[in-house]
Amino acid sequence: MNRMKKYLSGSTLLFNLILLLLAFTGSTFAEENCQLRGTGDLGVVIERATGSVQIINTSSHSSLFRVEGLGDLSHASVVYSRDARYAYVFGRDGGLTKIDLLCGKLVKRIIQGGNSIGGAISQDGKLVAVSNYVPGGVKIFSADDLSLLADIPATRLSPQKADKDSDKQNSKTVGLVDAPGHRFVYTLYDTGEIWLLNVRNPEKPVITRFKNIGFHPYDGLLTPDGRYYIAGLFGEDGMALLDLWHPEKGVKRILDHYGRGDKKLPVYKMPHLEGWAIAGDQAFFPAVGHHEVLVANSKNWQIKKHIKVHGQPVFVMARPDAHQIWVNFAFPDNDTVQVIDPETYKVIKTITPGKGVLHMEFTPRGEQVWISVRDKNQIQVFDTETLEKVATLEATKPSGIFFTSRAHKTGL
Amino acid sequence: MNRMKKYLSGSTLLFNLILLLLAFTGSTFAEENCQLRGTGDLGVVIERATGSVQIINTSSHSSLFRVEGLGDLSHASVVYSRDARYAYVFGRDGGLTKIDLLCGKLVKRIIQGGNSIGGAISQDGKLVAVSNYVPGGVKIFSADDLSLLADIPATRLSPQKADKDSDKQNSKTVGLVDAPGHRFVYTLYDTGEIWLLNVRNPEKPVITRFKNIGFHPYDGLLTPDGRYYIAGLFGEDGMALLDLWHPEKGVKRILDHYGRGDKKLPVYKMPHLEGWAIAGDQAFFPAVGHHEVLVANSKNWQIKKHIKVHGQPVFVMARPDAHQIWVNFAFPDNDTVQVIDPETYKVIKTITPGKGVLHMEFTPRGEQVWISVRDKNQIQVFDTETLEKVATLEATKPSGIFFTSRAHKTGL
Repeated sequence: MNRMKKYLSGSTLLFNLILLLLAFTGSTFAEENCQLRGTGDLGVVIERATGSVQIINTSSHSSLFRVEGLGDLSHASVVYSRDARYAYVFGRDGGLTKIDLLCGKLVKRIIQGGNSIGGAISQDGKLVAVSNYVPGGVKIFSADDLSLLADIPATRLSPQKADKDSDKQNSKTVGLVDAPGHRFVYTLYDTGEIWLLNVRNPEKPVITRFKNIGFHPYDGLLTPDGRYYIAGLFGEDGMALLDLWHPEKGVKRILDHYGRGDKKLPVYKMPHLEGWAIAGDQAFFPAVGHHEVLVANSKNWQIKKHIKVHGQPVFVMARPDAHQIWVNFAFPDNDTVQVIDPETYKVIKTITPGKGVLHMEFTPRGEQVWISVRDKNQIQVFDTETLEKVATLEATKPSGIFFTSRAHKTGL
Repeated sequence: MNRMKKYLSGSTLLFNLILLLLAFTGSTFAEENCQLRGTGDLGVVIERATGSVQIINTSSHSSLFRVEGLGDLSHASVVYSRDARYAYVFGRDGGLTKIDLLCGKLVKRIIQGGNSIGGAISQDGKLVAVSNYVPGGVKIFSADDLSLLADIPATRLSPQKADKDSDKQNSKTVGLVDAPGHRFVYTLYDTGEIWLLNVRNPEKPVITRFKNIGFHPYDGLLTPDGRYYIAGLFGEDGMALLDLWHPEKGVKRILDHYGRGDKKLPVYKMPHLEGWAIAGDQAFFPAVGHHEVLVANSKNWQIKKHIKVHGQPVFVMARPDAHQIWVNFAFPDNDTVQVIDPETYKVIKTITPGKGVLHMEFTPRGEQVWISVRDKNQIQVFDTETLEKVATLEATKPSGIFFTSRAHKTGL
């Protein structure tokens, strides 16, 4: 009996010890997949067909995690939290998903609209904004828990244009970017407007409207210094420029001959404006419908050069030091990438990564570029000095590539 | 006996379970101070007098850790690893210290020279370089374990200049920066040279020498695009400019009237070149010995404006969007900071944080600026839009402030 007691008390002690240990390490078990590491060299690769993303490391050229269940990732884009731990993925289906890069898991996913394209994170990192086609407008969420903080419907459509039986009552919104001064900027496709939204107090956003900026603005970009917002026009030639240092001066037209011209090319040929490179006092961008990259003076927006290239350009991207311009192309030339010298305007290298080159992302200091090659199920990494391939990663139908250094940039 | 056996086997089982648990969680116990978090919003504050640093968080305006034992931190500077987890601190005493931001600990510290000023990290993040006064030259270390990979003595001094009884046999080196193309650039103070060092193969660094660039180059800067290296001359007026896109064109003289002029001001008045702001096509920088900020066209280096300010400027820094220029001042005006509008060149605000304003660092997207106020033992944080103070942190005689977003920048 004595022994029995001893046994019991001994085992109880041990058992309690175990309980204590378990309690002490509980959080560890819950986070057993998490990695204690810096987040400066991480990124997200979109796997469109499977609704998944990979979290990758640009130092070791490796994949850390795959996260699934992100819905329709056509034309998906990504922004990062201020601490570069979390990625916010904007899907085509109105999905907004917050992902933890260190633990490789989906933190929260909401369906915030019916049909959306693009989003942005505020200068202070506290607000995530999404621009919606349906219902037309912008919604602002807490970056912390994705709770809705503000719903800002776009201009109501006229009865002729609105669809009475659906929620297509307001203009589509597109081209949403963050801007200095706690602002967001975007365009209203159906009503031809630019809206400048001050969200210093997100519960009372202040809207400044610029009307009649042109017919069907379909996208927007912010220059890397955060000063100029430029909207592309689908319905006519030319672009609309807003100086955010002087919004009181209104919207100005630039590049009057830029656009579809008389050809009226089909919709899918209009290159999106993320595919523009503003490099110092030069802008490099795709000619619409032509096998050309155009070069303009970024002060006066006069076109100074037409560069003949391999196909219709999609993305025209400057290496971070602007000493090289990399270009990929639309189908059927989407197996090729070309590199342009920004001084001589000559193509210095033609690379053929394979069919389905969809996106390119430079490492923050530009020594390498990551290229998604959809039809080969590969990410290929090139050294930008030797222009040789240095690594290949597997990915399922990869499209967009987004590195965490974007957390520190304005206007993405 | 049977019970005894049972007791033993039961307790052995429990004991083994505990051992297993301990083994499983061993790494956790060892890292109990470490924080599982992103590193994008962290930074280091130098506490010069105590040879310590604080690791701070710019989102919560808080201090995570203090790390001690860093030696002489006069004029200390910091660069970051590619993943933004580690800080490399360069001390005046030749100390090179690697710090883990997530665990708040000193990873490794070496004394790599006798007297040094400044360092840099290579474009790929693999190499840390330090420029030394004594022994004059540059040493290259592995960013991983701080092992010495290359020792590159500077030009040997003439017998008249060298000190036979010490190791002052080679020119002092200063103004070390990283540049695109796996390069480092620095100046040789005693022999009036710029050296361009290609470290693609760190075991066989390739040196390109530019001689006779001017008398006593005392510091250097790289323009933010990584293209132009500019050396300041202590021994004469003017600056030396090297175009890294075209090193074959050699070094050019610019700003012929910039310098001490006829006044021959004392040494400590020469403002260091980290205190220059290249903002688009304008450069803002301190006039030597005058209560003025100078503005030059950054293409042709013609001075276009003299702005009267409160004292002798030390740091003239552009907010990341270049829409404000912040200036601090030398003793006895070092209690004041002024903000300049880069369009009107007017001082739009004068702030008095307190005696000993030594450094300023903007958050990556520019919504706030952190200012060290040595004599108040404070870091003060200002909102750059309202220009109001939003937070105060305690620090012991703080000097330099360095945020992790520097991991992604060239030429720091």
